[in-house]
Amino acid sequence: MIQSTRKTIIMGIDPGLANTGWGIIEECGSKKRALAYGCISTSSTGDTASRLKAIHDQISAVIARYHPVELGIESIYFGANSKSAMATGQARGAALVAAAVSRLAIGEYSPKQIKQAVVGTGAADKEQVQYMVRVLLGLDHTPTPDHSADALAAAICHAHLRNKVETGEGEI
Amino acid sequence: MIQSTRKTIIMGIDPGLANTGWGIIEECGSKKRALAYGCISTSSTGDTASRLKAIHDQISAVIARYHPVELGIESIYFGANSKSAMATGQARGAALVAAAVSRLAIGEYSPKQIKQAVVGTGAADKEQVQYMVRVLLGLDHTPTPDHSADALAAAICHAHLRNKVETGEGEI
Repeated sequence: MIQSTRKTIIMGIDPGLANTGWGIIEECGSKKRALAYGCISTSSTGDTASRLKAIHDQISAVIARYHPVELGIESIYFGANSKSAMATGQARGAALVAAAVSRLAIGEYSPKQIKQAVVGTGAADKEQVQYMVRVLLGLDHTPTPDHSADALAAAICHAHLRNKVETGEGEI
Repeated sequence: MIQSTRKTIIMGIDPGLANTGWGIIEECGSKKRALAYGCISTSSTGDTASRLKAIHDQISAVIARYHPVELGIESIYFGANSKSAMATGQARGAALVAAAVSRLAIGEYSPKQIKQAVVGTGAADKEQVQYMVRVLLGLDHTPTPDHSADALAAAICHAHLRNKVETGEGEI
C-alpha cells in the first residue's frame, strides 16, 4: 500500500441547537494534528431562526478561515426522542447548508463508527473518546467542551475511513 | 377595533426533506389572496447536504422574488418518530436560515393552531384544511400538492394571529 502524503484539511461538526462543536484537523499521511476547534453556543432565549443563522454563519466563517475540503459529521441517530431529534436536525441542517455552499465532501458516520475509529471499540465512553482525541492529535490538553472533542472525533473518523475509500477529490 | 388596511406579504412554509411546501399570500385588512405557491422536491438519491442546500437556495429565491416580510411555519411537533423528526428538522433548519438571512419576522404555530385558524377546529382533517385554504384565498382550485396547501395554511394562520398580536413591525 502506498501511503498518501498529501495534506488534507478536514472539518468535524457535532451539531446541536444549544451547542454546535466544530474542529479542524490536518491530515498528512497517517499523521493528524488539530488546527483549531471551538463550540458555537446559542442562547435558549433567542428565537430559533436567529440561533440557526448564528450556527450557519459561524460554521461558514470557520470554513472561510481554515479552508477544509472535507467534513465528517455524525449521521442521524434514532435513539433520541423526537423533540431533541428535531432540534438537533435543525442545527444539522443549518450547518450542512454552510458546508454544501462551500462544496465540502461530506462523510456521515454513526456514533458507533466514530467511537470505533477513535478508540477501537464502538462501546467506548465519552472520557475514552476525549482521551484518544487528545492522543491521536498530539494535544497537550483535552479539548473542551465535549462538543469540540466530539467534532474532532468525527473529523478523525472521516480521515480514517477516507484513507480506505478515496473520495475522488483532485490532487493539488 | 380599527381595521388595518396596510398590505402585508406573508410566506408560509411546510418543511420536509423530500418535499418543502411554500406559499405566499397578500393580506390587506381582513382580505387575503394567494400570490404564489409551490413545492421544493429533492431526490432521495441525492446527498443530504445537497438536498438541504436546494431547499435553502429555493426558499431564498422565493423570498427574493416576492419580498415577504413575515413567515408562518409549523412549530416542532413531537408525535413523529425521531428519524422523521430529524429529517424534518434538517429541512426546517435550512429553510429558517434563509428566512433569518432575509430578516423575516417568524411566527411558529402548532398543527392544532393552524387547523383552528383555517377551519375553526383543531381536529380538522387534511381535506377540510385544503378546502378552506381554497375558500379563504379565493382560489378557483385546490392548491396541490398537499405541502403547498399546508404552507398556505401556515401563512393564513400567521395572518390571523398577527392581527391579534402586533409584531412590532414598522408601518410603511
